[in-house]
Amino acid sequence: MKKFINNPDNLAIELIDGFVLTNKKKVKRIAPHVCARSEAPIADKVGILIGGGAGHEPLFLEFIGKGMADASVHGQIFAAPTPDQIIAGIEAADSGKGVILLYNNYAGDVLNFDMAQDMAEDDDIRVETVLINDEITAFPPDNKAERRGTTADHIVIHIAGAAAEAGLEFDALKALIQKAVDNSRSIGVSNSACTLPETGMATFSLPEGKMELGMGLHGEAGVKQMDMLSADETADLLLDRIFADDLEFSEGDEVVALINGYGATTRMEMFLIMRRMHGYLEEKGLVVHDTELGEFCTAQEMAGVSVTIMKLDDELKQYYDMPADSPGYQKI
Amino acid sequence: MKKFINNPDNLAIELIDGFVLTNKKKVKRIAPHVCARSEAPIADKVGILIGGGAGHEPLFLEFIGKGMADASVHGQIFAAPTPDQIIAGIEAADSGKGVILLYNNYAGDVLNFDMAQDMAEDDDIRVETVLINDEITAFPPDNKAERRGTTADHIVIHIAGAAAEAGLEFDALKALIQKAVDNSRSIGVSNSACTLPETGMATFSLPEGKMELGMGLHGEAGVKQMDMLSADETADLLLDRIFADDLEFSEGDEVVALINGYGATTRMEMFLIMRRMHGYLEEKGLVVHDTELGEFCTAQEMAGVSVTIMKLDDELKQYYDMPADSPGYQKI
Repeated sequence: MKKFINNPDNLAIELIDGFVLTNKKKVKRIAPHVCARSEAPIADKVGILIGGGAGHEPLFLEFIGKGMADASVHGQIFAAPTPDQIIAGIEAADSGKGVILLYNNYAGDVLNFDMAQDMAEDDDIRVETVLINDEITAFPPDNKAERRGTTADHIVIHIAGAAAEAGLEFDALKALIQKAVDNSRSIGVSNSACTLPETGMATFSLPEGKMELGMGLHGEAGVKQMDMLSADETADLLLDRIFADDLEFSEGDEVVALINGYGATTRMEMFLIMRRMHGYLEEKGLVVHDTELGEFCTAQEMAGVSVTIMKLDDELKQYYDMPADSPGYQKI
Repeated sequence: MKKFINNPDNLAIELIDGFVLTNKKKVKRIAPHVCARSEAPIADKVGILIGGGAGHEPLFLEFIGKGMADASVHGQIFAAPTPDQIIAGIEAADSGKGVILLYNNYAGDVLNFDMAQDMAEDDDIRVETVLINDEITAFPPDNKAERRGTTADHIVIHIAGAAAEAGLEFDALKALIQKAVDNSRSIGVSNSACTLPETGMATFSLPEGKMELGMGLHGEAGVKQMDMLSADETADLLLDRIFADDLEFSEGDEVVALINGYGATTRMEMFLIMRRMHGYLEEKGLVVHDTELGEFCTAQEMAGVSVTIMKLDDELKQYYDMPADSPGYQKI
């Protein structure tokens, strides 16, 4: 055993047990794989349900609370939640105004969330979906519908949660969330694999001194294996790719500059990369409205970082600037 | 190179650059190795200065702000800050009511902070020191003055900062902080080494499947090497040691239950250990007033966790419950 676990077959349930005990006043357990903020469902508000596989904590489990989602469905390690659990999550989030499902674009998740959405609609709950697909390397811009969701998650969820609480109605809210997704681009680099907690096996192998560009959150192959770069060079590499993508930026545009650690990477390294990132964005004539740095979306103990840029407009900024209070993300 | 760095000789300076850029609105740079919360020094309040070696982020660098310290002095990687930088920190924290130095009990830190304290007193700034020494394995209770400070840091700093802001006068504040230290016990376990960023060398070696009990934050040897245990067994092992130490607990006592990740350990594992910790404390008849879980004090990418128990009384609880807003620790 390489990790501090108990029964490998019961990992998700036990970690959710611990999460609920850690945050007793703020969250409640709805079903084995479903948690909701204590006050859910909140009257007269569109519900936001998030979810996905476990093993990426704080994502998605811990992003429920004020200015965030109403409920989260947490599957087994690296595996989509099942439709019956998603249905329980929809019911926990719904106050009669319907629920928007917000999750990462992976085939297994889409299959199960879609099935639950159909079932909920049969029960006369209005349910629609916004898929997060911010990762730019796996598919080109003209095949964006295939792109995966990664580290823009928590700020998209925050904008969704803040806007829902501010009273935005269903259609306008869905359009806003879609805009937050469309204005986000992410790319990451990994310099050591993670191990699957059930087996202790590494998800991929990477020679010492090498890193892989565009590595997925579950060990999916990236687009290029290359020698390790310095912090400055890594920032330039990742940002060059983001600005070569299809999202257009003009001088003076305001952005959120975000660095996410995948697991084993130190805050020291993240601060070094962020240092160069600010210089890079300034050279581009962009205005950094806010900076975020931390572990928001992890892949177990994988080493590496991702960079996310979200381009703001007045509407996105208005909701982004609102407070958030969830176990995994606070904004005061 | 194993990490995302630039010039190995300039690590601390560059990481502080990145920290300040990341938190522009909340902190300011006072000197190369010194940061303060934006509004420091705050009139009519005893100042709190924290500090130590870099490489343990968020400790101590990021614990400045509302309900936390006024300024922090951040040395080179794993090396105490120099007296001239500490003096600059004292001046940044002092509004005329004096400054309490609050840091971990390591020889190099004590030497340099003491030298700075003497120099500040020559300048007629009242300066006194409280050393944090919560780690229980390195020395027995009857040699407590030798014990090291570890993962009780941020909650001791929070109590200090909240009480200073609430207007506690110098002597009462110092006594309160000392009580917070005296009521805290920590012990950790490590299951893989960290590497020094300057050299890429591991700080110690540990065979696969083994863990070391009582490992220090810089690779100091622990008290016992043993086979990896399950999450439940690890919780029991660490808590048994804490409750075998000299701090007395009675049924109904309120405690803060804290799990700290040293770097590479997942939140999944921390939640599993916390799950058992709550059961253990309940069996002991103790009341968990609050639970904290996260990376507060790291040793680069070392894998492992520590457990901290702080016993509360009404006075400690009053200040602990106040809000905190620092880059490294928020309490809403």
